[in-house]
Formats: sequence, structure tokens, C-alpha cells
Amino acid sequence: MEKKDLLGLEFLDKKEIETILNAVAPFKNLFTRSIKKVPTLRGKTVATLFYEPSTRTRTSFEIAAKRLSADVVNVAIAQSSVIKGESLIDTGKTLEAMKSDFIIIRHSLAGAPAVLARNVSSSVINAGDGFHEHPTQGLLDLYTIRDKKKRIEGLKILLVGDILHSRVAKSNIWGLTKLGAEVRVSGPPTLIPSNITDLGVKAYYNLDEALEGVDVVNILRIQLERQQENLFPSVHEYIELYQVTKDRLKKAKPDVMIMHPGPMNRGIEISSEVADSPASVIYEQVTNGIATRMAVLYLLSGKRDSGLKPKNGKSKE
Amino acid sequence: MEKKDLLGLEFLDKKEIETILNAVAPFKNLFTRSIKKVPTLRGKTVATLFYEPSTRTRTSFEIAAKRLSADVVNVAIAQSSVIKGESLIDTGKTLEAMKSDFIIIRHSLAGAPAVLARNVSSSVINAGDGFHEHPTQGLLDLYTIRDKKKRIEGLKILLVGDILHSRVAKSNIWGLTKLGAEVRVSGPPTLIPSNITDLGVKAYYNLDEALEGVDVVNILRIQLERQQENLFPSVHEYIELYQVTKDRLKKAKPDVMIMHPGPMNRGIEISSEVADSPASVIYEQVTNGIATRMAVLYLLSGKRDSGLKPKNGKSKE
Amino acid sequence: MEKKDLLGLEFLDKKEIETILNAVAPFKNLFTRSIKKVPTLRGKTVATLFYEPSTRTRTSFEIAAKRLSADVVNVAIAQSSVIKGESLIDTGKTLEAMKSDFIIIRHSLAGAPAVLARNVSSSVINAGDGFHEHPTQGLLDLYTIRDKKKRIEGLKILLVGDILHSRVAKSNIWGLTKLGAEVRVSGPPTLIPSNITDLGVKAYYNLDEALEGVDVVNILRIQLERQQENLFPSVHEYIELYQVTKDRLKKAKPDVMIMHPGPMNRGIEISSEVADSPASVIYEQVTNGIATRMAVLYLLSGKRDSGLKPKNGKSKE
Repeated sequence: MEKKDLLGLEFLDKKEIETILNAVAPFKNLFTRSIKKVPTLRGKTVATLFYEPSTRTRTSFEIAAKRLSADVVNVAIAQSSVIKGESLIDTGKTLEAMKSDFIIIRHSLAGAPAVLARNVSSSVINAGDGFHEHPTQGLLDLYTIRDKKKRIEGLKILLVGDILHSRVAKSNIWGLTKLGAEVRVSGPPTLIPSNITDLGVKAYYNLDEALEGVDVVNILRIQLERQQENLFPSVHEYIELYQVTKDRLKKAKPDVMIMHPGPMNRGIEISSEVADSPASVIYEQVTNGIATRMAVLYLLSGKRDSGLKPKNGKSKE
Repeated sequence: MEKKDLLGLEFLDKKEIETILNAVAPFKNLFTRSIKKVPTLRGKTVATLFYEPSTRTRTSFEIAAKRLSADVVNVAIAQSSVIKGESLIDTGKTLEAMKSDFIIIRHSLAGAPAVLARNVSSSVINAGDGFHEHPTQGLLDLYTIRDKKKRIEGLKILLVGDILHSRVAKSNIWGLTKLGAEVRVSGPPTLIPSNITDLGVKAYYNLDEALEGVDVVNILRIQLERQQENLFPSVHEYIELYQVTKDRLKKAKPDVMIMHPGPMNRGIEISSEVADSPASVIYEQVTNGIATRMAVLYLLSGKRDSGLKPKNGKSKE
Repeated sequence: MEKKDLLGLEFLDKKEIETILNAVAPFKNLFTRSIKKVPTLRGKTVATLFYEPSTRTRTSFEIAAKRLSADVVNVAIAQSSVIKGESLIDTGKTLEAMKSDFIIIRHSLAGAPAVLARNVSSSVINAGDGFHEHPTQGLLDLYTIRDKKKRIEGLKILLVGDILHSRVAKSNIWGLTKLGAEVRVSGPPTLIPSNITDLGVKAYYNLDEALEGVDVVNILRIQLERQQENLFPSVHEYIELYQVTKDRLKKAKPDVMIMHPGPMNRGIEISSEVADSPASVIYEQVTNGIATRMAVLYLLSGKRDSGLKPKNGKSKE
């Protein structure tokens, strides 16, 4: 890895993505051992800086860092306190001054991790920024597909749901298209940006058409709060038109694989039957998530130890 | 230990309880050393999953796990977010997929830990479920009694307070009766279940009668919120009838021992004079709590390493 | 160190303060190594007990303790729950019974850490008590001045802002005067206690006069909430009269050094130009904060291991 930070799959080329994917398996193998831990990041400090609440992603990063023997501090900043609080850059520079090797940031604003990365010498990992990207989720999805299907190139992969607001969808689209998959998206017209085809994907408002012959279906979590913005008419109608069911999946390839970033709304975007079917790799995604985040921390750490300089030269290192 | 989980003293036999109690002392001895830590659980992951807020129990488990060199992640789930959130089983399966060796769960619903245990290969420890059980508190109370009184069989042990809503009381009753103690309960009629005698205890509405000749008094914390449910008329009346005072204790054995699971409402269920008297082992219970939880983690871990399979066969291990 | 606790710079003599300052550099040097960690406190337990929310100070202590290889547990107690909760002493005795070697406490009441220290055998470190003291912040400020200016004696040091409510100001005043600095304070008359001169400092209501010939300006954070108490007329007026700007700093020595405990209100008590100027050591203070806290933990630990007894003899050790 030549980069200091992981900001998005948009900014990685095919080779860099493959370097990360190739580093995942050894960490995953570690989990079958009695002692699931290596000393790779001993004496390093990993700070999680979450401006949005998140149990799942924060826990995954925390476990990943601890299995690499890093010290972890969790910094949760309530959105409400941001108004009277200090700026993101000042907070970041404080964590840098505490000699944090990594800052893992979640922020409601697209681009916030990039701003932070330019201002600190710490390695910044984007754990979700607005509707922009969630790159480690994208990477773990890529790894899961490649691990199960033995390739990504040429596969037909469908993302179903709220494409507009999903950072998971964006990171998947960037990564999958770079690795040569045929990517489709499907959902209500109000939840699919009209210019999404510019990213090299095909948009389908009709789920049955979208499912035709696909190898993988990645089902996004519906944020029920969106209803109040009148972006989809009713939960009932959403279920009717876009819930992925066993019956609908008959249109897909016989060995279709089912993915979901979690947490699931069973009975809304996905039927329980599908979630628990042998085709589902949903919990394997969670396992791969830890291993993928360990790989990212490890690769960025190698870069750090070979001598990093902050980009704007104003750091107090 | 043949069991994967610790769900309640109801489900352990006398021999299993004694196996746990016998394992406590070495861990307690560790606390007198300069380095209070052993590598027993190095490379293991312990997740605390608390659906109810708890500082004391969560901290005790966290310290116990860290003194065994485990990695700990704290997952706090606000009751409010449960409604729109994923199910307990899906959350548990996520923690299992993260390769958590232990899930320590507190939940407002009796039986929730048992449901979780059936669905994951991780070892589940019940840290309090509804009005049902709080088995590690029961075990630490048993250990404290046996350590001080040199036996449990034949002792007269009184639990005072809100028996109905107390999981501490239930775990004490199961454990103490199995080890041969004579168990009494005392409190307002509205706070003692009418069928409690089926568990092999004697119920007294009159505290003075209940105290007659007892070896141990375990005083439960009164939840002042219960008043609004009209389960006891007033704090004033509760103090009048059920506060354990030095004067009342004259009815007990001269070497009576005073216990309380904490946190205490001084001046309500217990007088400060009693809490701070030489007869009180209240803070020793706290110390024993850490050692007891270390013993439980250690014994369940031995079982895990000898090759565990999940019960429902659906795990992705 | 002969003392069990660090309660305030008021209670340390010059020699003790210098002992601490002399211990900081080796820990700071550690941060330039690849593995920023030493085994000094391995097997020790550090509990943070915060009755007021604080991200910055709690994180700094947590990182400091982890770099010394201690186990850390964070106990946050919401002010709201204190009313129905147990007393500070009972909570402290619980943490002591859990064999916490250190209790790091923040409390809204001046003197709370001293009360705790008298009642537990654990070493107590004051992380801010009411308007009283924040001794580790004072020590890190002293260290930063001495490190940069090569001395403290004879320096002219100005504290600007809300002296009345600032525990940082109090700890700085105690420490700096003991080490022989000439200390000045400046701010609105309502925010400077009339008897502050008894502590051996000079008070200036006019900032320009106060800045005359100073070596160091330490700018305190303005708590905007104070406005509602009518303690200063308006933010606009505060900026007009007391904001430290580049222009105003012309009155100070040419090599004047700028400090701020953070988090900054840029554009209120400090201009961004000053905050980011080469004269500013604000982020270096943050780095020194970790090293200073490591030094304090290390020195108190040495005392502990040489055999501590609790002061009131009631501990269950």
C-alpha cells in the first residue's frame, strides 16, 4: 500500500484493491486457532472517532485492532455536542497529538474523512461518511464474493434497495466495477439516483427483471425513517415490490449467493426464509469483516512504519 | 464443566456448583500479587451485551476478563433502539460470527440468555435476566458464605426485601437449597410470590420472626421505582417494618454475617450502622465477584477448547 | 513520591512537583519508537470514574494507562443517576474492593477526590473537581513551559479568561508560583475572584496591560454557558476586550509562547491566526499530557508497590 489512508474504493485502483483482498485470508485463518491474536500492532494506538452511533462497525474495528494487539480508545461524539464543540480538524489534531497511529472515523458528512486525512499524520480509515462510502464494508463484500465464487470478473451482481442513501452500495459499485463485475441496482425510482448509470451500472425499477441470471444479490438495509421523507410510499408497497423472497430468487442463477450488510429488517427488505437459507452468507460477511479490517490496518501500518510525513507539514510530529 | 453456558443455578447440580466454588480461591489469591493477571484467556474475545444499563456488574465482568488476558468489547444496546433494531438472535449470531468466545448478556426478559445460548456456539453467561436469575451473583454469594462460615449445609440464611422482582434472590435460593442450607425469605406480602415455598424456602412477613437464629442475612436492594406500582405503601413504612438494624439483629446468631449485592440504599433497606459493622462482608462480596467471574470464564473456556459444537447446527463456524 | 494520591498542586511542594516534571521526558521519548508501550503497570487496574462527561481528559488518561500496559475500565456515572444512586464513598469502596490500583475521578464538586482518597486504599488522581483543581493539566502545562523555555523561575506567565470557574487556572497558579514564576491573570472583573491576589498573582482587567512583556500566554476556554449567569455581557464584547489576537500579542515578548488547554473556541477567546501560529504549542500540550499522566501513574505506582495502607484502616485489603 502506497497510501496513508483508506478513504474510499473510488480512490483505489484494481491492483490496490487486490492487494488488500489477498491479505485477508491469513487473518481469517487465525480465527480457527485457540489464540486468535498476533502482535502486529503491539504498542500502536487506534482511536475510533464516531460522530454517528454505530454498534456493529465500531465493534468490528475494535475487535480487529485488538486481535492485532493494538490499544484501542473509543471516542464517541454526540451530534448534538458538535455544534458547541471544536471542529473536526481540531479534534483530529488532538488525536494525532496523542500519537494515535490510526483514526477510524464515521461522520454524517460525505468527505469528512478526507478533510481529516489531509490534516493529520495518523492513518485515517473511513468507517462511513454520509451517503458517500463505507470502504471496509465494500472490501469485505468483495472478499466474500471472491472467496465463495472464486472470481469477481464477469459475475452478475445485484444491489437491491435504497441506492441513493447507501454508502455500502457506493463502495460496492466502485469496487465491483473496477474488478470487472457486471453490476445492477434495483429499487424504487425515488431511491435510485438518475445518474447512477454513469458509474457503469444498470438500473432496474423492476426487481424481477433485475434478478434475471444474477450470481449474487446484495440486499441493503431499508432505513424506515426515510418513509417520512416520502421517498417510498409505504412499507407494505416496498415489501410487495422489492422484498427478496425465495420465489423471486427463482429468476436468479441456481447457485445465487445472498448478502446483506446487516442489521436486517427481516420481513421487509429480505424474507426470513432467504436470510436463513443455505445461499445466505450474511454471517460469514461479519466474520470476513473482522479479517478485512485487520488486513487494512496491517497494510496501512506497514506504510506508516516505513516513514510517514503528514501532507500539510503542519503536524507537530 | 460439561456445560457450554451459565444460564442459572436452577440448571446446575450440587456438584457443578461446588466445582465452580472450588475454582474461585486461586483467582482471589492472585489479587494479593503485584501483577494481578494470568494469560489463561489470551487471544479470546469476550463481548458484554447489555440491554439494561449496569455499571457494577459490567465492570466486574470486564475486570475479570481482562485479568484473564482476554480482549473485551462492550456492546450496550438501549432498550429504546431494540424496537426498531434487529432481533436478539441476529445480534447474537453477529457476535458469534465475530468469533466472540463469550457473550455476557443482561436482558430485561427472563429466558433471553437461554434463547441466545441455543442459537450461538459462543459460551453465554447470564448477567441478569428479568426477574429470573443472576447466577454469578448467586455464586459469589455462595462462595462468600462458604469462605467465611466454612460450610453452607445446615446454615440458616435469610433473604430480606423484594423477593418477587429480585433475580439475586432467585439465584441464591436455587444455589443455597441445593447445597443444603435452610433458606428463609422475608418482606412485604406483595413482594413475596405466594408459591415461593415450592422452591423449598420458608416465607416470613414478620422480619423479627425471620431473623430468629439465622447465620446470614442477605439484604436485597429496594427498587424505589416499585412504589409507583403500589407494591409497598411507603418508604417510611418499609423502613419501619423491614430495615435491617443493629437492634433487630439481636434476634440473629451472635456471629451473624451481613450481605448486600449493592448498590445499597443506606437508611432504607439497611442502616448505615449495619452496613459498616464488622459483621458486614459487603465489600468482600465485590472482591469475590471478580474472582468468581474469573472462575466461571476459566471453567467454561476449558470446555470450549476441548471442542464445542453449536446446539442447533446452523452456526457458520 | 511519598503521597498515595494526586489531589492538587496546592498540596505538593516544589520538590514534589519537580520530581514529577523530571519523570515526564522518558515517557515522551517512548512516543518516537515504533512500540510506544512499556510493561510498567502490567497487571494493574486503572478505573476512570467520571461524574462529568469528558472526552479529552478521559481519553488522555486511558491512553497513558494503556501505554503503561495497565488494564483500564471506564465508569461513567450520569449526574442524573447520582440522586437515586449510591454515595461517592460507596462507589469508591466498590472500585477499591475490585482491587483497582488507581481511581481517576472527575466530579462537579470541589473536594470530592479528597473525600474519596481518604476512604480507599487505591491511589486517587483528581481529573478535575468543580472549580478547584485539575492537577495533571497544571503539571503538563508546567512541563511544556519548562521544556520550551528551559526554566520556569522568573518567567512572566499570563492566564487569560474565566479565572473564577477554571480549575486549570487554579492548578497553574499553584504550580507556577511554587516554581517561582510571576503569574498574571486577566479577564472580565466578574470572572476574576477578588481574593485571587492572595494566591500571589497580579490581576489585570485590561488585557493589553497584562500582556506587557510576558513570556507565556495560557488562554482558557470560555464556557459559553456562563453567559446565561450574566457573568459577562456578550460574546461580542468578550471578543472585543479579551480575545488574544496577533495584534495584541505585540505587547508580549517577541518569543512569547501560546498555550490553551483545549478544546478551543476559535474566534472567541483565541483567534485562529494565533492558534495556528509558530508560537503556539497547543498540540504539544496534548502530547505532553499523555507523557505527564504516565509519569504520575508511574510515580504513584512506585509508592503503592512499596506497601500501602489505607488511611482510615477500614479497607478489606
